[in-house]
Amino acid sequence: MKKLTVVKVGGKIVEEANSLKHLLADFSEIEGYKVLVHGGGRSATAMAAKLGIESKMVNGRRITDEETLKVVTMVYGGLVNKQIVAGLQAIGVNALGLTGADLNYMRSEKRPVQDVDYGFVGDVKEVNSEILADLILKGVVPVLAPLTHDKGGNMLNTNADTIASETAKALAEHFDVTLMYCFEKKGVLLNENDDDSVISQITPDIFEKYVQEGNISGGMIPKLENAFNAINSGVKEVVITRADLIHTDGGTKIS
Amino acid sequence: MKKLTVVKVGGKIVEEANSLKHLLADFSEIEGYKVLVHGGGRSATAMAAKLGIESKMVNGRRITDEETLKVVTMVYGGLVNKQIVAGLQAIGVNALGLTGADLNYMRSEKRPVQDVDYGFVGDVKEVNSEILADLILKGVVPVLAPLTHDKGGNMLNTNADTIASETAKALAEHFDVTLMYCFEKKGVLLNENDDDSVISQITPDIFEKYVQEGNISGGMIPKLENAFNAINSGVKEVVITRADLIHTDGGTKIS
Repeated sequence: MKKLTVVKVGGKIVEEANSLKHLLADFSEIEGYKVLVHGGGRSATAMAAKLGIESKMVNGRRITDEETLKVVTMVYGGLVNKQIVAGLQAIGVNALGLTGADLNYMRSEKRPVQDVDYGFVGDVKEVNSEILADLILKGVVPVLAPLTHDKGGNMLNTNADTIASETAKALAEHFDVTLMYCFEKKGVLLNENDDDSVISQITPDIFEKYVQEGNISGGMIPKLENAFNAINSGVKEVVITRADLIHTDGGTKIS
Repeated sequence: MKKLTVVKVGGKIVEEANSLKHLLADFSEIEGYKVLVHGGGRSATAMAAKLGIESKMVNGRRITDEETLKVVTMVYGGLVNKQIVAGLQAIGVNALGLTGADLNYMRSEKRPVQDVDYGFVGDVKEVNSEILADLILKGVVPVLAPLTHDKGGNMLNTNADTIASETAKALAEHFDVTLMYCFEKKGVLLNENDDDSVISQITPDIFEKYVQEGNISGGMIPKLENAFNAINSGVKEVVITRADLIHTDGGTKIS
């Protein structure tokens, strides 16, 4: 099968003109087919503030009330997405901006209210990747905003990491998929105070060992669990790396 | 060739939940392949006002400074476009929201400053309709926002009527195209005070006659000139009608 890389980049990088430009240049150098998934939380928070809407976060997740849903639909689906698409087109990448509503690509259901009412947040239920795979084979590079829909006429706010992993899993039917998460470090660190202590390869055995020894802890544990989940669902490799290294062989490889 | 209808709907109709719902139901009943082009000026003006940005209009056109460009990119490309796409998906229409940047569908150049500096407004230079035509034949219904790009990384604000006519002309290579403009009257009126005096058919001869006799005047003259221009560029028929009549045989037909 043909190689495809799903790159997820968050917040800051895509929201500042200069870092975005570098990112898109690096992204364009990735060989083979590719998909870009972006966040935009900082822009959404800033726009909400300008509009006098308070951004409420619980466990790092945005509480999406009706007004906030409008803001994220505008900011993620319009502002951030189109800046990326136009930026990629400028360097010869045939980008296509999409939300989960477009082509009914990703259907979700509003998260049931349990301890927390997250509001208009969608849990992914269905990914329709056939048309997307066709387009990718024609040279189109999808740029996915962190928004889905419920097929009942409502957009829903959806975590960009989830959009990336669901996309990687669905496209694994058509391609050899590498799922790449960008964050602020060069990779998963053996020593959190040493930026060069990147663990180059993590397998389930190594993961277990490092968790027991306390080298891997906190937010990195669910991140890696999600990575193994993607691997178990057909994704060939997950890479955790820094945005400026996406076109290199660096970072931490999970398989 | 197969029949395709390009429907342009403006402002108010797509910006109110109830009228939008009716419009989408009527639109879905149009037989054959279809494309929807939308405006969103009222929402953009309202959003700009909330953000403390003054909307400046000259000759009915928005002056698009840098801040206003962000607003229209968000509102047209994000908020209005995705509400329409989600609304169509809810009634089984496989909608795909696009700006001119997506798939490099419509490239424009920033309008040169002459008497008026319109700012970040694009004049259409190139339409790439091949992938769009392929998608349409697969059952996809494009929903076009009034935004283009300059292939240099910049989005540009572009009149929705122009997006519609350029789309109709480009797709005329692939389909028998009807271009339908919705406005507030049932069609072109012989007597502006009589809403039922719709002229059912206008040809160049009839147009000339009615202009000389003063039955057609004002803003309707350029509208009809644009219609004849589309016809001369391969569009089969132009229809001017009211939004709630798009799925009927009503309105004024120009050919």
